[in-house]
Amino acid sequence: MGCLFCNVLEKKVPADVVYEDEHALAFKDIRPVAPTHVLVIPKKHIAAIHDLTDADATTIGQVMIAAKKVAEQLGIHANGFRLVVNDGDEAGQTVHHIHVHVLGGRTMTWPPG
Amino acid sequence: MGCLFCNVLEKKVPADVVYEDEHALAFKDIRPVAPTHVLVIPKKHIAAIHDLTDADATTIGQVMIAAKKVAEQLGIHANGFRLVVNDGDEAGQTVHHIHVHVLGGRTMTWPPG
Repeated sequence: MGCLFCNVLEKKVPADVVYEDEHALAFKDIRPVAPTHVLVIPKKHIAAIHDLTDADATTIGQVMIAAKKVAEQLGIHANGFRLVVNDGDEAGQTVHHIHVHVLGGRTMTWPPG
Repeated sequence: MGCLFCNVLEKKVPADVVYEDEHALAFKDIRPVAPTHVLVIPKKHIAAIHDLTDADATTIGQVMIAAKKVAEQLGIHANGFRLVVNDGDEAGQTVHHIHVHVLGGRTMTWPPG
């Protein structure tokens, strides 16, 4: 099957897409932990943050900009939102294609897990 | 006093700096919630993720690359680490200069706050 999120990008796996641009795709997390919980992924396959090279700065930056646009579009930018990226086992990364969690619609607590 | 983190950048406020490059500075969080807990900030003052424009893609991307380098340097990249950015009140943002929390050295739980 290859990479789950590459399959989402290729429309081989369904997803509830909320935003798309040239660089990134955003869709609802299937196991939301906040009233708004969206994943933003780069269209380029990069497995994890620790795989980023200096040449990927703009690519990962465009994902962050897309996350900001998603927050605006979904109306959580006024009260606040949290971005979370898990890298590796101890952080709980389960899909090995970078994804930024965009969480909002409720007060977030600290520590962040 | 202006922006606290701009003052850190200008060495007017002390910080336990662990990494610096042309684009970003990283220093230990004064209230750590994990064995490794570092903040990575852009040298350019941007108050929050919701203030990012398309022109800031590379800037925020370089902060993410710096966060990755910090994780490597501090030895948390092998087991895993979590990146967190708070935007606004509901997320608990307290300093209005973008900062990426780099958290590692323990298993992180879910949800992330």
